[in-house]
Amino acid sequence: MSRFALTVEFDGRPFMGWQRQTHGPSVQAALEAAVLAVTGETVAVHAAGRTDAGVHGLAMRAHVDIDKEIGAFRLMEALNARVRPAPVAVTACAVVADDWHARFSCIGRAYAYRIVNRRAPLTVEAGLAWQVPQPLDAGAMAEAAQALVGLHDFTTFRSAHCQSASPVKTLDRLDVVRVGDRVTIEAAARSFLHHQVRSMVGCLALVGMGRWAVGDVAAALEAKDRAQLGLNAPPDGLYFMEAVYPPPSSRT
Amino acid sequence: MSRFALTVEFDGRPFMGWQRQTHGPSVQAALEAAVLAVTGETVAVHAAGRTDAGVHGLAMRAHVDIDKEIGAFRLMEALNARVRPAPVAVTACAVVADDWHARFSCIGRAYAYRIVNRRAPLTVEAGLAWQVPQPLDAGAMAEAAQALVGLHDFTTFRSAHCQSASPVKTLDRLDVVRVGDRVTIEAAARSFLHHQVRSMVGCLALVGMGRWAVGDVAAALEAKDRAQLGLNAPPDGLYFMEAVYPPPSSRT
Repeated sequence: MSRFALTVEFDGRPFMGWQRQTHGPSVQAALEAAVLAVTGETVAVHAAGRTDAGVHGLAMRAHVDIDKEIGAFRLMEALNARVRPAPVAVTACAVVADDWHARFSCIGRAYAYRIVNRRAPLTVEAGLAWQVPQPLDAGAMAEAAQALVGLHDFTTFRSAHCQSASPVKTLDRLDVVRVGDRVTIEAAARSFLHHQVRSMVGCLALVGMGRWAVGDVAAALEAKDRAQLGLNAPPDGLYFMEAVYPPPSSRT
Repeated sequence: MSRFALTVEFDGRPFMGWQRQTHGPSVQAALEAAVLAVTGETVAVHAAGRTDAGVHGLAMRAHVDIDKEIGAFRLMEALNARVRPAPVAVTACAVVADDWHARFSCIGRAYAYRIVNRRAPLTVEAGLAWQVPQPLDAGAMAEAAQALVGLHDFTTFRSAHCQSASPVKTLDRLDVVRVGDRVTIEAAARSFLHHQVRSMVGCLALVGMGRWAVGDVAAALEAKDRAQLGLNAPPDGLYFMEAVYPPPSSRT
Protein backbone atom coordinates (compact mmCIF):
# COMPACT_ATOMS: atom_id res chain seq x y z
CA MET A 1 0.00 0.00 0.00
CA SER A 2 1.15 3.50 -0.76
CA ARG A 3 -0.44 6.69 0.49
CA PHE A 4 -0.69 9.45 -2.10
CA ALA A 5 -1.23 13.13 -1.30
CA LEU A 6 -3.28 14.84 -3.98
CA THR A 7 -3.76 18.52 -4.77
CA VAL A 8 -7.23 18.87 -6.24
CA GLU A 9 -8.84 21.70 -8.20
CA PHE A 10 -12.58 21.65 -8.79
CA ASP A 11 -15.41 23.77 -10.06
CA GLY A 12 -18.05 23.51 -7.35
CA ARG A 13 -21.02 24.43 -9.54
CA PRO A 14 -22.28 20.94 -10.40
CA PHE A 15 -21.54 19.38 -7.02
CA MET A 16 -23.44 18.97 -3.75
CA GLY A 17 -20.07 19.73 -2.14
CA TRP A 18 -16.86 17.84 -1.45
CA GLN A 19 -18.38 15.07 0.62
CA ARG A 20 -20.00 11.96 -0.84
CA GLN A 21 -23.81 12.26 -0.80
CA THR A 22 -26.59 9.86 -1.55
CA HIS A 23 -28.68 12.54 -3.26
CA GLY A 24 -26.26 14.07 -5.77
CA PRO A 25 -22.79 14.33 -7.26
CA SER A 26 -19.82 15.19 -5.08
CA VAL A 27 -16.14 15.87 -5.70
CA GLN A 28 -15.21 13.00 -3.41
CA ALA A 29 -17.40 10.51 -5.27
CA ALA A 30 -16.01 11.68 -8.63
CA LEU A 31 -12.45 11.10 -7.42
CA GLU A 32 -13.28 7.77 -5.80
CA ALA A 33 -14.89 6.59 -9.03
CA ALA A 34 -11.74 7.63 -10.91
CA VAL A 35 -9.55 5.71 -8.45
CA LEU A 36 -11.76 2.64 -8.93
CA ALA A 37 -11.48 2.96 -12.70
CA VAL A 38 -7.69 3.29 -12.54
CA THR A 39 -6.87 0.71 -9.85
CA GLY A 40 -9.91 -1.50 -9.40
CA GLU A 41 -9.83 -0.48 -5.74
CA THR A 42 -12.77 0.89 -3.76
CA VAL A 43 -11.25 3.46 -1.47
CA ALA A 44 -12.04 6.63 0.45
CA VAL A 45 -10.43 9.88 -0.63
CA HIS A 46 -9.92 12.07 2.46
CA ALA A 47 -9.74 15.86 2.12
CA ALA A 48 -8.31 18.64 4.26
CA GLY A 49 -11.80 20.03 4.63
CA ARG A 50 -15.35 19.71 3.43
CA THR A 51 -16.82 22.30 1.14
CA ASP A 52 -20.48 23.17 0.60
CA ALA A 53 -22.47 22.86 -2.60
CA GLY A 54 -21.28 25.42 -5.12
CA VAL A 55 -18.01 26.17 -3.32
CA HIS A 56 -14.85 25.82 -5.44
CA GLY A 57 -11.41 24.44 -4.72
CA LEU A 58 -8.22 25.69 -6.31
CA ALA A 59 -5.82 23.64 -4.19
CA MET A 60 -7.74 21.28 -1.94
CA ARG A 61 -5.46 18.65 -0.43
CA ALA A 62 -6.51 15.03 -0.08
CA HIS A 63 -5.02 11.59 0.42
CA VAL A 64 -5.81 8.10 -0.78
CA ASP A 65 -4.32 4.67 -0.07
CA ILE A 66 -3.68 2.46 -3.09
CA ASP A 67 -2.45 -1.15 -3.21
CA LYS A 68 -1.71 -1.26 -6.93
CA GLU A 69 1.90 -0.54 -7.91
CA ILE A 70 1.73 2.82 -9.65
CA GLY A 71 3.92 5.90 -9.69
CA ALA A 72 2.64 9.27 -8.50
CA PHE A 73 2.87 10.91 -11.91
CA ARG A 74 1.11 8.06 -13.68
CA LEU A 75 -1.61 8.01 -11.01
CA MET A 76 -2.20 11.74 -11.47
CA GLU A 77 -2.44 11.42 -15.25
CA ALA A 78 -4.74 8.41 -15.03
CA LEU A 79 -7.05 10.06 -12.48
CA ASN A 80 -7.31 13.16 -14.66
CA ALA A 81 -8.19 11.00 -17.67
CA ARG A 82 -10.81 9.00 -15.75
CA VAL A 83 -12.43 11.77 -13.70
CA ARG A 84 -13.71 13.47 -16.84
CA PRO A 85 -16.12 14.96 -17.66
CA ALA A 86 -16.49 16.01 -14.02
CA PRO A 87 -14.77 19.41 -13.55
CA VAL A 88 -12.17 18.00 -11.18
CA ALA A 89 -8.42 17.91 -11.77
CA VAL A 90 -5.50 16.52 -9.81
CA THR A 91 -2.81 19.18 -10.15
CA ALA A 92 -0.16 17.48 -8.01
CA CYS A 93 0.40 14.00 -6.60
CA ALA A 94 3.13 12.61 -4.35
CA VAL A 95 3.76 9.56 -2.19
CA VAL A 96 3.65 10.48 1.49
CA ALA A 97 4.25 8.68 4.80
CA ASP A 98 1.49 6.32 5.88
CA ASP A 99 0.67 8.54 8.86
CA TRP A 100 0.22 11.72 6.77
CA HIS A 101 -3.47 12.63 6.86
CA ALA A 102 -4.97 15.32 4.65
CA ARG A 103 -7.36 16.40 7.40
CA PHE A 104 -5.67 15.55 10.71
CA SER A 105 -2.14 16.57 9.69
CA CYS A 106 -3.37 19.92 8.36
CA ILE A 107 -2.29 22.88 10.49
CA GLY A 108 -3.65 25.73 8.38
CA ARG A 109 -6.40 26.43 5.89
CA ALA A 110 -6.96 29.43 3.65
CA TYR A 111 -10.01 30.56 1.69
CA ALA A 112 -10.58 33.39 -0.73
CA TYR A 113 -13.96 34.97 -1.39
CA ARG A 114 -14.51 36.86 -4.64
CA ILE A 115 -17.03 39.66 -4.95
CA VAL A 116 -17.67 41.48 -8.21
CA ASN A 117 -19.03 44.86 -7.17
CA ARG A 118 -21.08 46.13 -10.08
CA ARG A 119 -24.66 46.45 -11.24
CA ALA A 120 -24.27 44.30 -14.36
CA PRO A 121 -24.88 40.55 -13.98
CA LEU A 122 -21.93 38.19 -14.31
CA THR A 123 -21.21 36.44 -17.60
CA VAL A 124 -17.85 34.64 -17.76
CA GLU A 125 -17.80 34.43 -13.97
CA ALA A 126 -21.42 33.39 -13.38
CA GLY A 127 -21.35 30.99 -10.42
CA LEU A 128 -17.70 31.86 -9.80
CA ALA A 129 -18.15 35.07 -7.80
CA TRP A 130 -20.79 36.97 -5.84
CA GLN A 131 -22.16 39.93 -7.75
CA VAL A 132 -23.04 42.75 -5.32
CA PRO A 133 -24.76 45.69 -7.04
CA GLN A 134 -24.58 48.18 -4.13
CA PRO A 135 -21.28 50.11 -3.97
CA LEU A 136 -19.10 48.51 -1.29
CA ASP A 137 -16.80 50.53 0.96
CA ALA A 138 -13.90 48.07 1.08
CA GLY A 139 -12.03 50.24 3.58
CA ALA A 140 -14.89 49.94 6.08
CA MET A 141 -15.06 46.19 5.42
CA ALA A 142 -11.33 45.83 6.07
CA GLU A 143 -11.66 47.77 9.31
CA ALA A 144 -14.65 45.73 10.50
CA ALA A 145 -12.85 42.49 9.63
CA GLN A 146 -10.15 43.14 12.20
CA ALA A 147 -12.65 42.64 15.02
CA LEU A 148 -12.92 39.00 13.95
CA VAL A 149 -9.19 38.26 13.86
CA GLY A 150 -7.85 36.39 16.87
CA LEU A 151 -9.25 33.87 19.36
CA HIS A 152 -13.04 34.15 19.60
CA ASP A 153 -16.24 32.24 20.16
CA PHE A 154 -17.61 32.29 16.60
CA THR A 155 -21.09 30.98 17.47
CA THR A 156 -22.70 33.86 15.54
CA PHE A 157 -20.82 32.82 12.40
CA ARG A 158 -21.51 29.09 12.69
CA SER A 159 -24.08 27.02 10.85
CA ALA A 160 -26.67 25.17 12.89
CA HIS A 161 -25.31 22.02 11.22
CA CYS A 162 -21.73 22.60 12.34
CA GLN A 163 -20.22 19.45 13.82
CA SER A 164 -17.19 21.12 15.39
CA ALA A 165 -16.73 20.30 19.10
CA SER A 166 -16.24 23.95 19.97
CA PRO A 167 -17.22 27.32 18.48
CA VAL A 168 -13.94 28.79 19.75
CA LYS A 169 -11.39 29.24 16.96
CA THR A 170 -8.43 31.44 16.19
CA LEU A 171 -8.80 33.43 13.00
CA ASP A 172 -5.29 34.28 11.81
CA ARG A 173 -6.12 36.60 8.97
CA LEU A 174 -9.14 38.30 7.36
CA ASP A 175 -8.04 40.72 4.65
CA VAL A 176 -10.25 42.74 2.34
CA VAL A 177 -8.71 44.12 -0.85
CA ARG A 178 -10.37 46.02 -3.69
CA VAL A 179 -8.88 46.06 -7.19
CA GLY A 180 -11.18 47.89 -9.60
CA ASP A 181 -14.66 46.37 -9.20
CA ARG A 182 -13.26 43.24 -7.52
CA VAL A 183 -13.37 42.93 -3.75
CA THR A 184 -11.50 39.88 -2.49
CA ILE A 185 -11.61 38.64 1.09
CA GLU A 186 -8.88 36.26 2.23
CA ALA A 187 -9.27 34.22 5.39
CA ALA A 188 -6.72 31.99 7.10
CA ALA A 189 -6.98 29.88 10.24
CA ARG A 190 -5.95 26.49 11.57
CA SER A 191 -9.57 25.45 10.98
CA PHE A 192 -12.96 27.00 10.35
CA LEU A 193 -16.49 26.32 11.54
CA HIS A 194 -19.18 25.31 9.05
CA HIS A 195 -20.29 28.43 7.09
CA GLN A 196 -17.83 30.60 9.02
CA VAL A 197 -16.20 32.24 6.00
CA ARG A 198 -19.48 32.85 4.18
CA SER A 199 -21.06 34.22 7.38
CA MET A 200 -18.15 36.59 7.99
CA VAL A 201 -18.19 37.72 4.35
CA GLY A 202 -21.94 38.32 4.49
CA CYS A 203 -21.63 40.61 7.52
CA LEU A 204 -18.65 42.44 6.03
CA ALA A 205 -20.70 43.03 2.89
CA LEU A 206 -23.45 44.62 5.02
CA VAL A 207 -20.80 46.97 6.39
CA GLY A 208 -19.58 47.67 2.88
CA MET A 209 -23.13 48.53 1.79
CA GLY A 210 -23.55 50.86 4.76
CA ARG A 211 -26.40 48.77 6.21
CA TRP A 212 -24.21 47.88 9.18
CA ALA A 213 -21.77 50.15 11.02
CA VAL A 214 -18.19 48.93 11.40
CA GLY A 215 -18.83 48.18 15.07
CA ASP A 216 -21.84 45.99 14.33
CA VAL A 217 -19.56 43.12 13.32
CA ALA A 218 -17.84 43.14 16.70
CA ALA A 219 -21.24 43.35 18.38
CA ALA A 220 -22.54 40.37 16.38
CA LEU A 221 -19.44 38.38 17.38
CA GLU A 222 -19.86 39.37 21.02
CA ALA A 223 -23.53 38.31 21.00
CA LYS A 224 -22.52 34.66 20.34
CA ASP A 225 -25.94 34.20 18.80
CA ARG A 226 -26.60 32.85 15.31
CA ALA A 227 -29.74 35.02 15.15
CA GLN A 228 -27.43 38.07 15.10
CA LEU A 229 -25.91 36.97 11.78
CA GLY A 230 -26.69 39.60 9.18
CA LEU A 231 -26.21 37.65 5.98
CA ASN A 232 -24.66 34.39 4.79
CA ALA A 233 -22.83 35.06 1.51
CA PRO A 234 -23.65 32.69 -1.38
CA PRO A 235 -21.27 29.79 -2.10
CA ASP A 236 -20.44 31.05 -5.61
CA GLY A 237 -17.59 33.31 -4.52
CA LEU A 238 -15.87 30.93 -2.10
CA TYR A 239 -12.63 29.15 -3.00
CA PHE A 240 -10.60 26.74 -0.88
CA MET A 241 -7.11 28.06 -1.60
CA GLU A 242 -4.56 26.28 0.54
CA ALA A 243 -3.98 23.63 3.18
CA VAL A 244 -0.78 23.90 5.20
CA TYR A 245 1.14 20.94 6.65
CA PRO A 246 4.26 20.69 8.79
CA PRO A 247 7.38 20.07 6.72
CA PRO A 248 8.12 16.33 6.42
CA SER A 249 11.32 16.70 8.48
CA SER A 250 9.34 17.82 11.50
CA ARG A 251 7.13 14.73 11.55
CA THR A 252 7.74 12.49 14.53
CA MET B 1 -33.47 59.16 -31.92
CA SER B 2 -30.54 58.78 -29.54
CA ARG B 3 -27.38 56.83 -30.18
CA PHE B 4 -26.13 54.84 -27.20
CA ALA B 5 -22.61 53.49 -26.82
CA LEU B 6 -22.56 50.21 -24.93
CA THR B 7 -19.73 48.37 -23.22
CA VAL B 8 -20.55 44.68 -23.42
CA GLU B 9 -19.16 41.70 -21.56
CA PHE B 10 -19.97 38.20 -22.77
CA ASP B 11 -19.04 34.58 -22.24
CA GLY B 12 -18.40 33.27 -25.76
CA ARG B 13 -18.99 29.60 -24.97
CA PRO B 14 -22.64 29.28 -26.03
CA PHE B 15 -22.39 31.61 -29.03
CA MET B 16 -21.53 31.20 -32.71
CA GLY B 17 -19.68 34.50 -32.27
CA TRP B 18 -20.62 38.15 -32.07
CA GLN B 19 -22.37 38.41 -35.40
CA ARG B 20 -25.98 37.45 -36.02
CA GLN B 21 -26.21 34.01 -37.67
CA THR B 22 -29.06 32.04 -39.10
CA HIS B 23 -27.72 28.77 -37.73
CA GLY B 24 -27.18 29.53 -34.06
CA PRO B 25 -27.12 31.99 -31.16
CA SER B 26 -24.98 35.12 -31.32
CA VAL B 27 -24.17 37.94 -28.92
CA GLN B 28 -25.55 40.46 -31.39
CA ALA B 29 -28.89 38.66 -31.71
CA ALA B 30 -29.16 38.34 -27.92
CA LEU B 31 -28.65 42.09 -27.52
CA GLU B 32 -30.99 42.96 -30.39
CA ALA B 33 -33.70 40.78 -28.85
CA ALA B 34 -33.18 42.57 -25.53
CA VAL B 35 -33.48 45.98 -27.25
CA LEU B 36 -36.69 44.81 -28.91
CA ALA B 37 -38.08 43.64 -25.57
CA VAL B 38 -37.22 46.96 -23.90
CA THR B 39 -38.17 49.42 -26.65
CA GLY B 40 -40.31 47.55 -29.14
CA GLU B 41 -37.77 48.60 -31.77
CA THR B 42 -36.07 46.26 -34.24
CA VAL B 43 -32.57 47.60 -34.53
CA ALA B 44 -29.02 46.57 -35.36
CA VAL B 45 -26.41 46.62 -32.63
CA HIS B 46 -23.03 47.45 -34.19
CA ALA B 47 -19.82 46.32 -32.51
CA ALA B 48 -16.20 47.47 -32.64
CA GLY B 49 -15.28 44.07 -34.05
CA ARG B 50 -16.58 40.61 -34.74
CA THR B 51 -15.53 37.69 -32.62
CA ASP B 52 -15.50 34.01 -33.51
CA ALA B 53 -17.46 31.24 -31.88
CA GLY B 54 -16.16 30.59 -28.38
CA VAL B 55 -14.25 33.89 -28.12
CA HIS B 56 -15.08 36.05 -25.09
CA GLY B 57 -15.50 39.77 -24.63
CA LEU B 58 -14.69 41.66 -21.44
CA ALA B 59 -15.23 45.15 -22.82
CA MET B 60 -16.58 44.98 -26.36
CA ARG B 61 -17.91 48.34 -27.50
CA ALA B 62 -21.08 48.67 -29.53
CA HIS B 63 -23.70 51.23 -30.46
CA VAL B 64 -27.42 51.20 -31.04
CA ASP B 65 -29.94 53.83 -32.16
CA ILE B 66 -33.17 54.04 -30.17
CA ASP B 67 -36.24 56.21 -30.78
CA LYS B 68 -37.91 55.58 -27.43
CA GLU B 69 -37.21 58.21 -24.77
CA ILE B 70 -35.04 56.42 -22.24
CA GLY B 71 -32.04 57.38 -20.13
CA ALA B 72 -28.71 55.60 -20.51
CA PHE B 73 -28.77 54.12 -17.02
CA ARG B 74 -32.31 52.84 -17.35
CA LEU B 75 -31.52 51.38 -20.77
CA MET B 76 -28.51 49.53 -19.35
CA GLU B 77 -30.53 48.12 -16.46
CA ALA B 78 -33.40 47.09 -18.72
CA LEU B 79 -31.11 45.42 -21.27
CA ASN B 80 -29.39 43.46 -18.51
CA ALA B 81 -32.75 42.31 -17.19
CA ARG B 82 -34.01 41.28 -20.64
CA VAL B 83 -30.86 39.71 -22.08
CA ARG B 84 -30.93 36.94 -19.48
CA PRO B 85 -30.34 34.05 -19.39
CA ALA B 86 -27.81 34.68 -22.18
CA PRO B 87 -24.37 35.29 -20.60
CA VAL B 88 -24.19 38.86 -21.88
CA ALA B 89 -24.03 42.00 -19.74
CA VAL B 90 -23.99 45.69 -20.53
CA THR B 91 -21.43 47.13 -18.12
CA ALA B 92 -21.60 50.75 -19.29
CA CYS B 93 -23.97 52.82 -21.42
CA ALA B 94 -23.83 56.44 -22.55
CA VAL B 95 -25.48 58.70 -25.09
CA VAL B 96 -23.02 59.60 -27.86
CA ALA B 97 -23.05 61.83 -30.92
CA ASP B 98 -25.02 60.52 -33.89
CA ASP B 99 -21.83 60.15 -35.93
CA TRP B 100 -20.03 58.04 -33.31
CA HIS B 101 -19.67 54.53 -34.71
CA ALA B 102 -18.50 51.58 -32.63
CA ARG B 103 -16.64 50.11 -35.59
CA PHE B 104 -15.69 53.00 -37.84
CA SER B 105 -14.76 55.45 -35.07
CA CYS B 106 -12.58 52.85 -33.37
CA ILE B 107 -8.86 53.62 -33.60
CA GLY B 108 -7.45 50.80 -31.49
CA ARG B 109 -8.31 47.28 -30.42
CA ALA B 110 -6.75 45.07 -27.77
CA TYR B 111 -7.05 41.35 -27.14
CA ALA B 112 -5.71 39.11 -24.41
CA TYR B 113 -5.06 35.40 -24.82
CA ARG B 114 -4.93 33.21 -21.72
CA ILE B 115 -2.93 29.99 -21.63
CA VAL B 116 -2.87 27.71 -18.60
CA ASN B 117 0.40 25.82 -18.90
CA ARG B 118 -0.06 22.59 -16.97
CA ARG B 119 -0.77 18.93 -17.51
CA ALA B 120 -4.02 18.84 -15.52
CA PRO B 121 -7.24 19.61 -17.41
CA LEU B 122 -9.08 22.84 -16.64
CA THR B 123 -12.00 22.88 -14.21
CA VAL B 124 -13.20 26.35 -13.19
CA GLU B 125 -11.68 27.78 -16.38
CA ALA B 126 -12.82 25.10 -18.85
CA GLY B 127 -13.62 26.95 -22.09
CA LEU B 128 -12.08 30.13 -20.65
CA ALA B 129 -8.41 29.43 -21.39
CA TRP B 130 -6.21 27.18 -23.54
CA GLN B 131 -4.64 24.38 -21.53
CA VAL B 132 -1.18 23.59 -22.95
CA PRO B 133 0.42 20.55 -21.29
CA GLN B 134 3.95 20.94 -22.71
CA PRO B 135 6.17 23.31 -20.70
CA LEU B 136 6.25 26.67 -22.48
CA ASP B 137 9.35 28.86 -22.62
CA ALA B 138 7.63 32.23 -22.28
CA GLY B 139 10.93 34.07 -22.73
CA ALA B 140 11.39 32.51 -26.18
CA MET B 141 7.75 33.30 -27.02
CA ALA B 142 8.24 36.93 -26.00
CA GLU B 143 11.36 37.16 -28.15
CA ALA B 144 9.68 35.58 -31.17
CA ALA B 145 6.68 37.89 -30.79
CA GLN B 146 8.77 40.96 -31.44
CA ALA B 147 9.24 39.89 -35.08
CA LEU B 148 5.50 40.42 -35.57
CA VAL B 149 5.31 43.92 -34.09
CA GLY B 150 5.20 46.74 -36.64
CA LEU B 151 3.90 47.13 -40.19
CA HIS B 152 3.73 43.78 -41.98
CA ASP B 153 1.87 41.74 -44.55
CA PHE B 154 0.12 39.27 -42.21
CA THR B 155 -1.11 36.91 -44.95
CA THR B 156 0.35 33.92 -43.07
CA PHE B 157 -1.73 34.81 -40.00
CA ARG B 158 -4.99 35.48 -41.84
CA SER B 159 -7.99 33.20 -42.20
CA ALA B 160 -9.05 32.19 -45.70
CA HIS B 161 -12.40 33.80 -44.81
CA CYS B 162 -10.89 37.17 -43.92
CA GLN B 163 -12.82 40.02 -45.57
CA SER B 164 -10.21 42.72 -44.92
CA ALA B 165 -9.24 44.68 -48.04
CA SER B 166 -5.55 44.28 -47.29
CA PRO B 167 -3.37 41.85 -45.31
CA VAL B 168 -1.05 44.71 -44.39
CA LYS B 169 -1.55 45.85 -40.79
CA THR B 170 0.45 47.52 -38.07
CA LEU B 171 0.72 45.46 -34.90
CA ASP B 172 1.41 47.87 -32.06
CA ARG B 173 2.09 45.43 -29.27
CA LEU B 174 2.44 41.68 -28.70
CA ASP B 175 3.53 40.96 -25.15
CA VAL B 176 3.98 37.57 -23.52
CA VAL B 177 3.99 37.37 -19.73
CA ARG B 178 4.18 34.33 -17.48
CA VAL B 179 2.85 34.41 -13.90
CA GLY B 180 3.06 30.96 -12.33
CA ASP B 181 1.42 28.50 -14.73
CA ARG B 182 -0.41 31.31 -16.59
CA VAL B 183 1.00 32.62 -19.84
CA THR B 184 -0.89 35.67 -21.11
CA ILE B 185 -0.40 37.20 -24.53
CA GLU B 186 -1.61 40.76 -25.09
CA ALA B 187 -2.04 42.14 -28.58
CA ALA B 188 -2.91 45.69 -29.62
CA ALA B 189 -3.40 47.22 -33.07
CA ARG B 190 -5.66 49.64 -34.89
CA SER B 191 -7.34 46.57 -36.38
CA PHE B 192 -6.72 42.86 -36.83
CA LEU B 193 -7.27 40.36 -39.61
CA HIS B 194 -9.65 37.44 -39.12
CA HIS B 195 -7.92 34.80 -36.93
CA GLN B 196 -4.81 36.97 -36.64
CA VAL B 197 -4.47 36.84 -32.86
CA ARG B 198 -5.19 33.11 -32.63
CA SER B 199 -2.76 32.43 -35.50
CA MET B 200 0.01 34.47 -33.87
CA VAL B 201 -0.62 32.80 -30.49
CA GLY B 202 -0.54 29.35 -32.08
CA CYS B 203 2.88 29.97 -33.63
CA LEU B 204 4.23 31.51 -30.44
CA ALA B 205 3.06 28.42 -28.56
CA LEU B 206 5.04 26.25 -30.98
CA VAL B 207 8.09 28.34 -30.12
CA GLY B 208 7.32 27.96 -26.42
CA MET B 209 7.11 24.17 -26.82
CA GLY B 210 10.46 24.12 -28.65
CA ARG B 211 8.87 22.76 -31.84
CA TRP B 212 9.70 26.01 -33.63
CA ALA B 213 12.85 28.09 -33.26
CA VAL B 214 12.43 31.75 -32.39
CA GLY B 215 13.34 32.71 -35.97
CA ASP B 216 10.65 30.46 -37.47
CA VAL B 217 7.97 33.03 -36.60
CA ALA B 218 9.73 35.73 -38.62
CA ALA B 219 10.21 33.23 -41.46
CA ALA B 220 6.51 32.33 -41.44
CA LEU B 221 5.60 36.03 -41.56
CA GLU B 222 8.07 36.62 -44.39
CA ALA B 223 6.61 33.70 -46.38
CA LYS B 224 3.23 35.49 -46.69
CA ASP B 225 1.67 32.06 -47.08
CA ARG B 226 -1.18 30.70 -44.96
CA ALA B 227 0.23 27.20 -45.48
CA GLN B 228 3.23 28.26 -43.36
CA LEU B 229 0.99 28.81 -40.35
CA GLY B 230 2.04 26.41 -37.61
CA LEU B 231 -1.04 26.31 -35.45
CA ASN B 232 -4.24 28.28 -34.90
CA ALA B 233 -4.88 28.54 -31.16
CA PRO B 234 -8.39 27.55 -29.98
CA PRO B 235 -10.95 30.31 -29.32
CA ASP B 236 -11.29 29.40 -25.63
CA GLY B 237 -8.41 31.60 -24.47
CA LEU B 238 -9.21 34.72 -26.51
CA TYR B 239 -10.75 37.83 -24.94
CA PHE B 240 -11.65 41.11 -26.61
CA MET B 241 -10.34 43.54 -24.00
CA GLU B 242 -10.59 47.09 -25.25
CA ALA B 243 -11.69 49.35 -28.08
CA VAL B 244 -10.11 52.79 -28.21
CA TYR B 245 -11.81 55.92 -29.56
CA PRO B 246 -10.65 59.50 -30.01
CA PRO B 247 -11.70 61.75 -27.13
CA PRO B 248 -15.04 63.48 -27.86
CA SER B 249 -13.35 66.88 -27.98
CA SER B 250 -11.28 65.84 -30.99
CA ARG B 251 -14.33 64.86 -33.06
CA THR B 252 -14.88 67.09 -36.05
